[in-house]
Amino acid sequence: MNQKIKDLLSQMTVEEKAEICSGASWWKTAAIDRLEIPEIMMSDGPHGLRTQPDDADHLGINESIKAICFPTASATACSWDRNLLNKMGEALGEEAQTEGVHILLGPGVNIKRSPLCGRNFEYFSEDPLLASELATEFVKGVQSLGVGTSLKHFAANNQEHRRLTVDAQIDERTLREIYLSAFEKVVKEAQPWTVMCAYNKVNGTHASEHKRLLTDILKEEWGHQGFVVSDWGAVNYRDKGIAAGLELEMPSSHGDGKKAIIDAVEAGNLSEDSLNRAAERVLKIVFKAIENETDYLNYNKDQHHKLAREIAADSMVLLKNKNQILPLSEKESFGVVGAFAKKPRFQGGGSSHINPYQIDKAYEEINKFIEGELPYAEGYSLESDQDDAKLIASAKELAEKVEKVIIFAGLPDRYESEGYDRDTLAIPPNQNRLIEEILEVNKNVVVVLSNGSPIIMPWLDKVKGVLEGYLAGQAGGGAVADILFGHVNPSGKLAETFPQKLSDNPSYLFFPGEKDTVEYREGIFVGYRYYDSKKVEPLFPFGYGLSYTDFEYSDLKLMKQEITDKETLNLRLKVKNTGEIYGKEVIQLYVSDPESTVIKPAKELKEFAKIELEPGQEKIVEFELDKRAFAYYNTEIDDWYVESGDYEILIGASSRDIRLVETVKVKSTVELPNQYTINTNIGDITANPEGQKYFNQLLSEYLKGSELMERLENRDDEMLEAMLKYMPLRSLAMFSEGVVSREEIEEMVDKLNKNL
Amino acid sequence: MNQKIKDLLSQMTVEEKAEICSGASWWKTAAIDRLEIPEIMMSDGPHGLRTQPDDADHLGINESIKAICFPTASATACSWDRNLLNKMGEALGEEAQTEGVHILLGPGVNIKRSPLCGRNFEYFSEDPLLASELATEFVKGVQSLGVGTSLKHFAANNQEHRRLTVDAQIDERTLREIYLSAFEKVVKEAQPWTVMCAYNKVNGTHASEHKRLLTDILKEEWGHQGFVVSDWGAVNYRDKGIAAGLELEMPSSHGDGKKAIIDAVEAGNLSEDSLNRAAERVLKIVFKAIENETDYLNYNKDQHHKLAREIAADSMVLLKNKNQILPLSEKESFGVVGAFAKKPRFQGGGSSHINPYQIDKAYEEINKFIEGELPYAEGYSLESDQDDAKLIASAKELAEKVEKVIIFAGLPDRYESEGYDRDTLAIPPNQNRLIEEILEVNKNVVVVLSNGSPIIMPWLDKVKGVLEGYLAGQAGGGAVADILFGHVNPSGKLAETFPQKLSDNPSYLFFPGEKDTVEYREGIFVGYRYYDSKKVEPLFPFGYGLSYTDFEYSDLKLMKQEITDKETLNLRLKVKNTGEIYGKEVIQLYVSDPESTVIKPAKELKEFAKIELEPGQEKIVEFELDKRAFAYYNTEIDDWYVESGDYEILIGASSRDIRLVETVKVKSTVELPNQYTINTNIGDITANPEGQKYFNQLLSEYLKGSELMERLENRDDEMLEAMLKYMPLRSLAMFSEGVVSREEIEEMVDKLNKNL
Repeated sequence: MNQKIKDLLSQMTVEEKAEICSGASWWKTAAIDRLEIPEIMMSDGPHGLRTQPDDADHLGINESIKAICFPTASATACSWDRNLLNKMGEALGEEAQTEGVHILLGPGVNIKRSPLCGRNFEYFSEDPLLASELATEFVKGVQSLGVGTSLKHFAANNQEHRRLTVDAQIDERTLREIYLSAFEKVVKEAQPWTVMCAYNKVNGTHASEHKRLLTDILKEEWGHQGFVVSDWGAVNYRDKGIAAGLELEMPSSHGDGKKAIIDAVEAGNLSEDSLNRAAERVLKIVFKAIENETDYLNYNKDQHHKLAREIAADSMVLLKNKNQILPLSEKESFGVVGAFAKKPRFQGGGSSHINPYQIDKAYEEINKFIEGELPYAEGYSLESDQDDAKLIASAKELAEKVEKVIIFAGLPDRYESEGYDRDTLAIPPNQNRLIEEILEVNKNVVVVLSNGSPIIMPWLDKVKGVLEGYLAGQAGGGAVADILFGHVNPSGKLAETFPQKLSDNPSYLFFPGEKDTVEYREGIFVGYRYYDSKKVEPLFPFGYGLSYTDFEYSDLKLMKQEITDKETLNLRLKVKNTGEIYGKEVIQLYVSDPESTVIKPAKELKEFAKIELEPGQEKIVEFELDKRAFAYYNTEIDDWYVESGDYEILIGASSRDIRLVETVKVKSTVELPNQYTINTNIGDITANPEGQKYFNQLLSEYLKGSELMERLENRDDEMLEAMLKYMPLRSLAMFSEGVVSREEIEEMVDKLNKNL
Repeated sequence: MNQKIKDLLSQMTVEEKAEICSGASWWKTAAIDRLEIPEIMMSDGPHGLRTQPDDADHLGINESIKAICFPTASATACSWDRNLLNKMGEALGEEAQTEGVHILLGPGVNIKRSPLCGRNFEYFSEDPLLASELATEFVKGVQSLGVGTSLKHFAANNQEHRRLTVDAQIDERTLREIYLSAFEKVVKEAQPWTVMCAYNKVNGTHASEHKRLLTDILKEEWGHQGFVVSDWGAVNYRDKGIAAGLELEMPSSHGDGKKAIIDAVEAGNLSEDSLNRAAERVLKIVFKAIENETDYLNYNKDQHHKLAREIAADSMVLLKNKNQILPLSEKESFGVVGAFAKKPRFQGGGSSHINPYQIDKAYEEINKFIEGELPYAEGYSLESDQDDAKLIASAKELAEKVEKVIIFAGLPDRYESEGYDRDTLAIPPNQNRLIEEILEVNKNVVVVLSNGSPIIMPWLDKVKGVLEGYLAGQAGGGAVADILFGHVNPSGKLAETFPQKLSDNPSYLFFPGEKDTVEYREGIFVGYRYYDSKKVEPLFPFGYGLSYTDFEYSDLKLMKQEITDKETLNLRLKVKNTGEIYGKEVIQLYVSDPESTVIKPAKELKEFAKIELEPGQEKIVEFELDKRAFAYYNTEIDDWYVESGDYEILIGASSRDIRLVETVKVKSTVELPNQYTINTNIGDITANPEGQKYFNQLLSEYLKGSELMERLENRDDEMLEAMLKYMPLRSLAMFSEGVVSREEIEEMVDKLNKNL
């Protein structure tokens, strides 16, 4: 421990330590003047600063300062670009330093269990590897500027419905492989200064007082060095939180939290050691933040706006491009339809809502690329779901006059937000109607979407182009224009599956649960893990996205054919741009375990890379896989475990477009514990040669001369062998008609436990 | 207790009581000569007698006496005919009396969780209501002849894979609504003399020592009067079994079981009271069996064979009949292809395998209806999956010469049996190939199927007719002929869903589990409950089946529009035969609960009726529904509970062909316990007017004069109300910025608990 903090702690009273663990206001920690402990300030994120300089704000809902609204995580995840996320993090760090913000409250790495979750736009992916890789770079970016982050919402906050009271019931393996995994890498590799605990309960215990999550796993297993802050209002019993590893309560609880801590210490229900540990962790970050303050920074808003545009353009996903309807040529005749073109939806509602410094409207940005006035029709009202006959009529009139129609559609603000979940994947019916009506008069339709989460597209077969823009930040309008005209070649790929219908989603039958309980019954089968394993055809698969050029994959080569789980596997392949223009490609590596004694998804993402290629250029892509790429979480040994056997390395352009496959043999160096009982199946003993040998020896000993032994020695008795395979030891008594007694079987069990 | 048994018990030693609870041999209970306690004999069932007169048999696998092989339960379930099952039961009772069998080991009412379960052919349905209604009548039929039954396998024996060691992990509500429900009605209404416990574990405990299942639920809650017998070899620890309510171990354990009981009593680990209760229950049935013995019966094998044919014909399901390709006319030119036509598969392998008195071959039975020699080609070998070019060539040659081709196809013995599960829904590839080849030369193809469980039909769109014969017993060949020629109008309807592909099945991802654990993660969503709720299109839905005539449904009338859960709802509708020929129709009543605070299937079967109608005839069908038709199993109160609200009564010709709908309001008379905590959502308090009123009172009291109260009184603040709905009481502190303290909130909770 830092000597300064050690000294401070030794001077602090219980009251002062309780105070330092309790927010002083909505955004600030407590200052203790007597000891010259300063306050630090936090600000909502994650894709921009929602800084409220007047901390006297009621409930934190007043207007915030002007800031850059970058694309939301649902968008940036589709970039699959670690560097891009790092750059965005740096930019946000610079902004935070400029505004005097010490900790930016983000990123959010909760897994998209259901596309209905109202807050999905703030989260990255249905896949924990993708989410954690991108979040790691984001955190590194922000923190490289001396500003802290808050990795949230830890853990299993995967719905807004009853989020303050719902108990997420998740089996251990699923928790480890899916929901915690998204946090684990970020903590281990980027050390976010803080982690924010979730509102909900996890397996019966509030996340805000979940010792197993906050201390055993986060601090001890993963080595988190910073502090845990409560989501705003997530504290249940403050003293239990301290004991469990929740160091800071936010916002101020007006003395309630402090009192609970002091009372508990006085009553002997909370050890002062626990409180010391909590205060120490808070102080370490407070002083780190103060030490890292700079005052020479004043970020360039225009440059950041430009960066926001680049990020948005590299994140958008071209979903359909029939007959190369895109890119548009400046000389073509086309028009724009849809209210979103002039009233863009570029961010979501709730705590992440930014007061943007500037808003680019797609209509205006497109117009900048062409001469004259771009034809436009509103098409529908954003405030209503009802058709407006006049708006439709004038949109059709426009559509009749142009060669191509660009329709802007998607989810209005009222359809998705923090605080509640959607109950449909549909966009407003008046938008669907508009698209169908336009298609009656013009077949050359491109739909540009603004939405935080998947939608269904009843008109998909009839339109020629679909560009998924997600919620692309304040510069999203310009990014759309860049892509439509081919100034940027789209390279985004979906970070989540688009289902054909809501009921196809794996959580459907049990989402959002009943009363205050939600069971994660689909277990590890989240997203493509489910669609692939259940053989359900998605609307668009995970990892999918088109480009204006083509890429050829070849020459996959594994550096070894066989490894142990202590070795790494290096491999390489070639990717070539076979088209006419520059482009970027996301190369995805999935691992499949065709034979396993445990239930596994058809395949899982274990690595990815994004590369840029000039026309005709070919590059070598290299990957390295370690134990985790082949492991599942084994709850018997409470650790990651690789079952010995053959694994397939699948290289794909999407989860459903696998281009190259090779097989590697992996050998486990870990022996699982064996405990034989009278109920051990004989087949489980004889599965390996050693067990087979010893078991045969036991049989000869105990069944000597019996009729059963004679039949067993006659090895061509296949039926008998099949029966034995799934027969517990205790059944040998019946099977031998009493030649072996129960007592002798218990002897056999003892011998097996001693000798195998 | 019967005085005689009381006297006997008082004279018996611990050894003798242990002996009476232990099988004496493979099929017989122990006789105790000293006390003139006779032995009784059991025989495998359920669809025929597998009686082995020589009890010295090794492992019960020797040849049994000749008996009538009736259709298997997978077939008879499709009759949806309570009377038919009762008649079949009577016939089997007569046979048992003739052969000196005291207890017939059946029926099996396990739920068809997965179509892969190797023993599904012995079970009725994926629906517990249908299974229990038919099994109830079967049991009543057998027992009316003074012969006992054994309702099996209790409980949750839904797979053969690792059946002796697997632990079925099932949540309480699912267990009650689906898996136990199939047993419950049979026990309550038909009092089977014995219930057979399953091999597997249920939630961690062997079914053979599961006190909660065998005593608390079966005996105490449902009132079972007879004894529980172990499935052959299901005993784990015999003394624990006695304590749990497993009265009889079968077969003989050569002294092991007896010794375990005696040792446990002597060591004080098992109370003699428990042993007395067990012995008493065994003795009651032993003497009942002996008292009911008759020696004047000698059943007429030919009559029973005829009955078996009637049952089979009324059970077969016409799945497709394009352009009325069926019924055949005797004058048409047609031929028969497929080895099953001459080597029928009519029963399954394992303990239910009957030595049939006579076997009708479809080929011969069809030939009897026509003049001359019916053309036949084998088409494929039953012993192999390989195409046989010669067999295909001669089948095609035949097909070219006739107008219509009847192809017999299905699952050979080696594909399904007790003891192992299938791993595919496909029939052998050589049969699929044959059908495709025949279709190349003749489009008028009818496929007749022999299989114990659903299959997939890649050729379905191309053939004109499909008759599902299941495993139809020794007279199945005649029944097929009856239906093909229209001598019997088909009236069977599927008792299980046929999925389009294996992965559509709800248990798919978790079946058959990993190692010795299988999790029933799909919960209550078994069979059509899943397909309907998940909106997955089946190949053929539950309850589906065609007739040679048409039925019109009309005039659904509920006798009341509103009932309480203590009243019954009577309703009626009209069904008319609008076709030209006599026929039978199965009318299905489903209940749907469109709004519920708990998760529910889209609809559930709650009643059904089978009626016969002359051409033009109309009948009134009446149903009565009680509480259970609207209830779910509420684990908070451990009882069936009806949530107040509107329920839809759906009358259908299948689960996907709903013809009539009416709504009834049901009011609960049961109040659920309320326990308020600081984590109770405000919306859950204010959901009813009383709660709303009292809560407003509390708010006025505690928030008086605060800014929050002002906003709350301003009732048009919709956002605020929405926020309150899902806000726990504890959040009022933060929300009021400390105007209400945590202590005051705890006071509010106390008041709520006192006053609401």
